[in-house]
Amino acid sequence: MRSRVAAARVARLATLAEGPRPHLVPCCFALEDDRDTVYSAVDGKPKSTLALRRLANLRSHHRASLLVDHYDEDWSALWWVRVDGAGRVVDDGTERDRALALLAAKYEQYRRDPPPGPVIALDLSTWRAWP
Amino acid sequence: MRSRVAAARVARLATLAEGPRPHLVPCCFALEDDRDTVYSAVDGKPKSTLALRRLANLRSHHRASLLVDHYDEDWSALWWVRVDGAGRVVDDGTERDRALALLAAKYEQYRRDPPPGPVIALDLSTWRAWP
Repeated sequence: MRSRVAAARVARLATLAEGPRPHLVPCCFALEDDRDTVYSAVDGKPKSTLALRRLANLRSHHRASLLVDHYDEDWSALWWVRVDGAGRVVDDGTERDRALALLAAKYEQYRRDPPPGPVIALDLSTWRAWP
Repeated sequence: MRSRVAAARVARLATLAEGPRPHLVPCCFALEDDRDTVYSAVDGKPKSTLALRRLANLRSHHRASLLVDHYDEDWSALWWVRVDGAGRVVDDGTERDRALALLAAKYEQYRRDPPPGPVIALDLSTWRAWP
């Protein structure tokens, strides 16, 4: 499960919006090697409003879920891994620096263009996989 | 937005589990041509427990969100479409028959092996897209 999550280039993050209702976005992310924490950056200007929603959700409701899956027309090859946990917004400090280093190590795109804003940290508590 | 959703082979469905907390699964689905309703089948035995969770969630909390996205290493080519709405479980009757026909028309896999269980209907109320 861990290696599939670590290697995935994209995941989908669900948080809780007011209502409550589920809120869902795709995201790039990095899994910390020796800890059950996932980091995801909030990208720049074009989706700033949407990014704010995600951050506001996590500041109000910590519960979040991250899904990594593989689709294949051969349905016997389908799989997914889901990790549930508590989300936090990391506005600055050494944890943000560490998160940005992990994201830059995984994504060349972030090395070229470091994300300027806060970082989302997801402390994972439950791992589930199918099949 | 509509054509991207209609053509996508897989989406991710977020519902609300007790807590509440967000619950997230990948799913195959079909978009009804002339209405804002999406149908998704619950597959057979191997994931029956997981499928039941999804159904139980929708019976308790109708709010759901479906995300279709495209990942590309060229981040200027990224896009997503998200549709929020109210989910219902359709256990039988003509709406279930109609849903299974739509799913079979889209997926050869369902033509070979029709899904035996209930169907999820998602009545879409809000469409959002990025960029």
